[in-house]
Amino acid sequence: MFYLCYMLSISTRGQVMPASPIRKLVPYAEAAKKRGTRVYHLNIGQPDIETPLPMLDAVRHSDFKILEYSHSAGNESYRRKLVGYYQQAGIELDYSHIIITTGGSEAILFAMLSCLDAGDEVIIPEPFYANYNGFAVAAGIKVVPVTSQIENGFALPPIHSLEEKITGRTKAILICNPNNPTGYLYSREELEKLKGIVQKHNLFLFADEAYREFCYTGTHFSTMQLQGVDDHVILLDTISKRYSSCGARIGALITKNRQVLDAVVKFAQSRLSPPSFGQIAGEAGLDLPHDYFNATKTEYMLRRDTLVKRLNQIPGVYCPNPGGAFYAMAKLPVDDTDRFCQWILESFSYEGQTVMMAPGTGFYGTPGLGKQEVRFAYVLNAEAIHNAMNCLEKAIEVYNSKA
Amino acid sequence: MFYLCYMLSISTRGQVMPASPIRKLVPYAEAAKKRGTRVYHLNIGQPDIETPLPMLDAVRHSDFKILEYSHSAGNESYRRKLVGYYQQAGIELDYSHIIITTGGSEAILFAMLSCLDAGDEVIIPEPFYANYNGFAVAAGIKVVPVTSQIENGFALPPIHSLEEKITGRTKAILICNPNNPTGYLYSREELEKLKGIVQKHNLFLFADEAYREFCYTGTHFSTMQLQGVDDHVILLDTISKRYSSCGARIGALITKNRQVLDAVVKFAQSRLSPPSFGQIAGEAGLDLPHDYFNATKTEYMLRRDTLVKRLNQIPGVYCPNPGGAFYAMAKLPVDDTDRFCQWILESFSYEGQTVMMAPGTGFYGTPGLGKQEVRFAYVLNAEAIHNAMNCLEKAIEVYNSKA
Repeated sequence: MFYLCYMLSISTRGQVMPASPIRKLVPYAEAAKKRGTRVYHLNIGQPDIETPLPMLDAVRHSDFKILEYSHSAGNESYRRKLVGYYQQAGIELDYSHIIITTGGSEAILFAMLSCLDAGDEVIIPEPFYANYNGFAVAAGIKVVPVTSQIENGFALPPIHSLEEKITGRTKAILICNPNNPTGYLYSREELEKLKGIVQKHNLFLFADEAYREFCYTGTHFSTMQLQGVDDHVILLDTISKRYSSCGARIGALITKNRQVLDAVVKFAQSRLSPPSFGQIAGEAGLDLPHDYFNATKTEYMLRRDTLVKRLNQIPGVYCPNPGGAFYAMAKLPVDDTDRFCQWILESFSYEGQTVMMAPGTGFYGTPGLGKQEVRFAYVLNAEAIHNAMNCLEKAIEVYNSKA
Repeated sequence: MFYLCYMLSISTRGQVMPASPIRKLVPYAEAAKKRGTRVYHLNIGQPDIETPLPMLDAVRHSDFKILEYSHSAGNESYRRKLVGYYQQAGIELDYSHIIITTGGSEAILFAMLSCLDAGDEVIIPEPFYANYNGFAVAAGIKVVPVTSQIENGFALPPIHSLEEKITGRTKAILICNPNNPTGYLYSREELEKLKGIVQKHNLFLFADEAYREFCYTGTHFSTMQLQGVDDHVILLDTISKRYSSCGARIGALITKNRQVLDAVVKFAQSRLSPPSFGQIAGEAGLDLPHDYFNATKTEYMLRRDTLVKRLNQIPGVYCPNPGGAFYAMAKLPVDDTDRFCQWILESFSYEGQTVMMAPGTGFYGTPGLGKQEVRFAYVLNAEAIHNAMNCLEKAIEVYNSKA
């Protein structure tokens, strides 16, 4: 047995592949629930907003007899209809620029595989969506982080600090706008600066715009609206958050670069097709009334305002006001948020309640950073957020009095 | 513009990634249809069998309000119920051995990523399912083909010819049983021989058993039934063909090797979850009456018998009788099946009809092999097969009289 384990080893990448920093606390949360403690889940981006009924109904009323493969690039009807959606967002496309993917996740993987070879580098402002690391390991590419600062709300790092990271292996810059985990909404000026860099150094610009509709301060300017960089820009999109349809597993990779499209289609062909039911739901989502997002946005703004206000009222806590998405990254007055986030689940409760948060370190590529930060996903209603903040305030007090 | 195209290049793997050999003739088929020619699609494994109604109804009657992420490893209820399915197939499992994937495609990719590093080698008897090449390119691993022979029905190549291919980088052998594209059903004796090799050389044994239920001569013996190689065997599965549910995009990776499971779960976490609707369909499929497959099997046997008989009646054609799946690989008396399969769509019709086949070369890793072979997917009813064979017989005559 020892012989087998020793000789028959899994891959190095299977070993170095990071476990989800968001999900690693799950056993502690489950144990807390078994003890009867109510856990407020502010740790994961699963919205509590109901999926629009017309989308679910489109699936429920589907009447085909064979659940067939779709086209590898997605149903043409869906792709054609998406052109109208993007037009309303100020993005002019032909349907052939759009390849439907299995979630935004697959769009990220396809972009990396199609544009970067193993050993190539992608620059990403940190903190960043932790799963970028996972796709980078799968694709064998190196993530080069550039640190953004909580003090200025996690704005785009200065251009010189981005340029300093560029090497002969750098092939792309990846941004998430509005940002997960910081909620930062990039300004048009910042995107124009990025345009300058990708032109000057001939890089791809990957833009994850999963939270396009969730902008509270200012309007969203898409990388696809930048002029003169059509060959550089690759848009990574998903319906998961837009329509609270995470389980549909439908996203899109969008670019006007024909070489990239050709390569992506080949990767898409190898996995045959994206999910058929999810595409039906996604296509139905395009018929929603234009004011659908208003109610959702109003609700999220209320939650954001509640969360950020309460956080900044806790002594020693600092949380910049996020401009978009439904995340906020806060600095807590504790020694180590990995330890604190486990402790609050394992050894603390206040009035039978506690809070689950995502420790900051998982969102940083630079070792040692984020140790005092946590990410909140404000996917619960304002009342739940108030209760969670009551817990958090007490918890910080108790935790620090014990230390 | 030239400057951009030159400097901003896609990845090498994006360039070498093979286009689907099955789908590359699509434009010629579409043109034929536009001319009014009826095209018999024997080129692709999209069954014409109706998806079992209870599976579609389970989706149609689903009544959740939020289309949420599922567990990264798939819904626990589904995984637990699958244990019973595998038990009926003679495979003893715990639900934790089963990880639900987005189609069998993702199971293949996860197996490669988790067990092999870039530059490692996997030995695959050829001809093989062409998309294995695609996943190998994505994972940066080298496919090492070992040629099986049409003369003995594409049986497992002699053990010495497999062993000759083993190098210091060989990490796995991959088989598809019953086989796509040959329809060959591996015997228990052949699998025991493979067991000997993977034990002796400490290799993983990947077994794609997508067509487990489709066995016509003899019963299926699974690699998971081999004794003493629990740490070696990784089963790659899918509901696509079993329940004619290709569009569900639901498969599974199954192994008792805990190290592999841990790595696969991390890759699964990075892409969040498999499709929710597809899992509902898949779980409902497990409640189908046990005789569900009988009717399907009877239908496929009739088609197989029709196809193989008709093929072998055409002068110069040879087609071994496949023991399983719904594919047959035949040798045609033509110079080049890539050219012939294009020509029959582009320049030929008989009574307003023609045939689409998959040229053999796409299924071989060794350059130059398969030039006289084509793969047939017998996914059409017997009458359509008869008509298609009438076309083919005439076409070979005409094609060779012109050459």
